[in-house]
Amino acid sequence: MTGDLIIYTYDWVPQGPRGFVRDLRLRWAAEEAGLPYDVRTVPFEDRETNHLDRQPFGQVPFLADGEITIFESGAGLLHLARRSEELMPRDAVGAAATLQWVIAALNSIEMVTVPWWFLQMSGQKDDGLTGWMDQRLAQLEAVLARRDWLAADRFTVADLVMTDVLRVSKVRAHGDRPATEAYIERVTARPAFQKAHSDQITHFATADEERSNRGR
Amino acid sequence: MTGDLIIYTYDWVPQGPRGFVRDLRLRWAAEEAGLPYDVRTVPFEDRETNHLDRQPFGQVPFLADGEITIFESGAGLLHLARRSEELMPRDAVGAAATLQWVIAALNSIEMVTVPWWFLQMSGQKDDGLTGWMDQRLAQLEAVLARRDWLAADRFTVADLVMTDVLRVSKVRAHGDRPATEAYIERVTARPAFQKAHSDQITHFATADEERSNRGR
Repeated sequence: MTGDLIIYTYDWVPQGPRGFVRDLRLRWAAEEAGLPYDVRTVPFEDRETNHLDRQPFGQVPFLADGEITIFESGAGLLHLARRSEELMPRDAVGAAATLQWVIAALNSIEMVTVPWWFLQMSGQKDDGLTGWMDQRLAQLEAVLARRDWLAADRFTVADLVMTDVLRVSKVRAHGDRPATEAYIERVTARPAFQKAHSDQITHFATADEERSNRGR
Repeated sequence: MTGDLIIYTYDWVPQGPRGFVRDLRLRWAAEEAGLPYDVRTVPFEDRETNHLDRQPFGQVPFLADGEITIFESGAGLLHLARRSEELMPRDAVGAAATLQWVIAALNSIEMVTVPWWFLQMSGQKDDGLTGWMDQRLAQLEAVLARRDWLAADRFTVADLVMTDVLRVSKVRAHGDRPATEAYIERVTARPAFQKAHSDQITHFATADEERSNRGR
């Protein structure tokens, strides 16, 4: 596909994060919105220093949209949402509800789940964050038990980012939240997620083949 | 002051968080923008259940703007930024830069500093988050060593929220980051911050007096 939209990700990552690298959020949003995009890469090797001019924390994704460049997946999503009603309703009340739930995903849920996951992966004994995470996830479960979508009675970019936060394997496997689980199933069944996920898996698998062909 | 804008906070909080409760972010933004606002309250007591219909995580602030209600301080800030060029430039490049740094404050910096602070306050021995936080804060220090403002060569709502994240006492006292410290000094010297901070201190001090007058 060719278009003004360019999503930048790594040229390669190990198996572990495949299917979860956050370029997926932007691929998924572009697929939902029907916006054409290209995917380009920066090297995974020396990622902490090799593209700080474009992403000052050495991460991916970042997005180019004509003369605009933007990093932070959440910011890229809100930028794309301005271009597509598929991602965010155009009425002021629906837009505000969508915005608040995008930020809730990033700053009330992911702010707990990612550090919790980070400590789990580091093999830290952690009694400090689990209780806090359990409380937040229970509060969200109470919301999702009452409705199918977070905002405006329809799928929005808020569901996209919240689902991407919640589907992290360790978080999903921790505890029992039936409404949340049904929500994750419902949202990840969308064709746009399936395509974005499959494309990311293929992208990194192709990188394996190229490495192998180069004899590395 | 009277206007359509209503900022909700707690009726009272203990001494510790005074000056840091996040209604300050919205007060500050409204002051920068010259938007009139009222402040109303929900009870601090039983906060975890008494206003879940308006803030599903039992927190403050939340904002009412005519028919719109919005929770999450970051969402409230981006909502107000739509109403005022003082908070966010109107050109597409400047708006995108501001948006990306608002999200960076919430999802790359605060996502590490708040859990770190939480573990510190819980008396947890934590080797797991300090290194991660140090890395992120060093990356941000490198940015702030090169420029005065995060986006668009001027003060924006991105500086407002980033400064509010960085000025948390324990975080500010941890490590040595001269450019960051100069940035915090510069941004918190703004009259709009000073007024918002002073008003919040007065709000909770008045609540103390009212409690005392009621013989509590």
